[in-house]
Amino acid sequence: MKIIVDAMGGDNAPLEIIKGCAEAQTEFELDIILVGNEDIVKKSAQENGIDISKMQLVNTTEVIATDDDPQSVLKTKPDSSMAVALKMLADGDGDAFVSAGNSGALCVGGTLIVKRIKGVKRPGFAPILPHFNGGCFMLVDAGANLESRPEMLLQYAIMGSAYMEKVMGIENPRVGLANVGSEEHKGLELQHKAFELLKNSGLNFVGNVESRDLPYGACDVLVCDGFTGNMILKTYEGVAKALMSKVKELFSKNTKNKVAAALVMSDLKAMAKEFDYNEYGGAPIMGTAKPVFKAHGSAKAKTFKNALRLTKDYVDANVIEEIAKAVK
Amino acid sequence: MKIIVDAMGGDNAPLEIIKGCAEAQTEFELDIILVGNEDIVKKSAQENGIDISKMQLVNTTEVIATDDDPQSVLKTKPDSSMAVALKMLADGDGDAFVSAGNSGALCVGGTLIVKRIKGVKRPGFAPILPHFNGGCFMLVDAGANLESRPEMLLQYAIMGSAYMEKVMGIENPRVGLANVGSEEHKGLELQHKAFELLKNSGLNFVGNVESRDLPYGACDVLVCDGFTGNMILKTYEGVAKALMSKVKELFSKNTKNKVAAALVMSDLKAMAKEFDYNEYGGAPIMGTAKPVFKAHGSAKAKTFKNALRLTKDYVDANVIEEIAKAVK
Repeated sequence: MKIIVDAMGGDNAPLEIIKGCAEAQTEFELDIILVGNEDIVKKSAQENGIDISKMQLVNTTEVIATDDDPQSVLKTKPDSSMAVALKMLADGDGDAFVSAGNSGALCVGGTLIVKRIKGVKRPGFAPILPHFNGGCFMLVDAGANLESRPEMLLQYAIMGSAYMEKVMGIENPRVGLANVGSEEHKGLELQHKAFELLKNSGLNFVGNVESRDLPYGACDVLVCDGFTGNMILKTYEGVAKALMSKVKELFSKNTKNKVAAALVMSDLKAMAKEFDYNEYGGAPIMGTAKPVFKAHGSAKAKTFKNALRLTKDYVDANVIEEIAKAVK
Repeated sequence: MKIIVDAMGGDNAPLEIIKGCAEAQTEFELDIILVGNEDIVKKSAQENGIDISKMQLVNTTEVIATDDDPQSVLKTKPDSSMAVALKMLADGDGDAFVSAGNSGALCVGGTLIVKRIKGVKRPGFAPILPHFNGGCFMLVDAGANLESRPEMLLQYAIMGSAYMEKVMGIENPRVGLANVGSEEHKGLELQHKAFELLKNSGLNFVGNVESRDLPYGACDVLVCDGFTGNMILKTYEGVAKALMSKVKELFSKNTKNKVAAALVMSDLKAMAKEFDYNEYGGAPIMGTAKPVFKAHGSAKAKTFKNALRLTKDYVDANVIEEIAKAVK
């Protein structure tokens, strides 16, 4: 399997990216194509003793920054690592593409360069978030399309279910509709219509889900419009991160607390790991004609390796074929 | 000052409500009118040794349950404690009304029985949430009106600023607009138009705020439509609650962990208190012609007492007069 990698995307590129690639290459037997500035990538590999001799390296001159306009992937930066890599994927030079770079640009480029699966109205950005009991759920759409139509929510549910079943191994995934209350009549026109579509979809629809129930594993796939999803994603991540750092701070406050920390260290670490969205590697862009996977922007080598593993599973599981059959 | 109290509203009514009232009556020198089923209230007071002899008691026969339709306050339950109390407030029988009951019904009843401040388009449900650094912020609207127009968001900002300054003592409160990114062009038409209005409002507008920055004190008043606000509120509370209960679980897991817990107990309690939205007592319904205050549904006596204190401050600070001047 050949995976194309954006060597320049993310806060820790290229070092942590190529480090993750080197580990994944051996462990998962992948062919990796690094796309990025040849000089910078080679120098980083050399200085850090990372063997990239078995990876193909495609030279590009530009980089899409985190705060660049998403449209830059199409317009102003045609020789960016992301734009070139997406074209290579579209042209059949690899089986999948992974980037830790600009999410917006990846959604735009995935949709318009790699193109959509036939029948899919709009691809959705679909991060995997941890439940607080060891599991995880997919949130789709988390911001690829701020406004959504009911049919799009139905497709998000179909695509999310296929992914969670085939890649994450969850049998008969429970689909929830993000809403302000659990009763059927809650919400606005979008929720009313989407509820009807989901109820009659043949999916394992569990009804409206209030976001306060998400940490307790209320569903395996949560669907909503991109504006709402983005709010849920960032609140979920933000509160968890702020609280965990508070706990950390508490334990390093003084000697007494440090003693306590030593006693519970292994349990604390296990808990932190459970909540750590980095463990889940990232977010597929659901609905593109070939697998496009977003690794977390702050990904270090281990997280990026995880992302490569998930991408491999994404290809192996034929999720895209499954979706194509379901939406046509 | 005369405060009307819904003796039947909330998960712990009437016991914790009347207990909170008894404490507040002495501490804050309030006249309290309890509205609820006379027999039940009297029996609860007697059995628990709570002195309600100096409170007025108004008998009602019905109760609005948490899962009742919000419209029930107007239509099917005219003799409910909430409906009767709201009519009393509208008729001038008291200076403010506090209930731990059904939020939706309180918003509907507040708007249509107590009525709006002249010039206010729609009242907003405005919970106070903790920052994770000891402060707090107001989120408005958290669900009174699922759909909002830009002018409504401007009014939420005006009302929220007045409240946070006058009642919570925050000088020149920073107003943020909930959005998917910090740049001015982010979001949909509602956000674009609201941004313009807020920029030119004379308020201390700090621009778009991403929900991941809320725990770090990004603003003092966050404005958004009611659907978005409800998602943020429930995700914020849900994740914090789930994580804190995980920490608690960890510390009672075994003897070793219990020893550690004893060492950090006082710090842990202080942290839990910082995150505890119960500490902030609840949420005013901003924009009603007289103060209507929602105490947390799970309020115990201490939280309800806090709610009464905040309601007293709400009346004392003449916030409603301030708003009336600003919106006319």
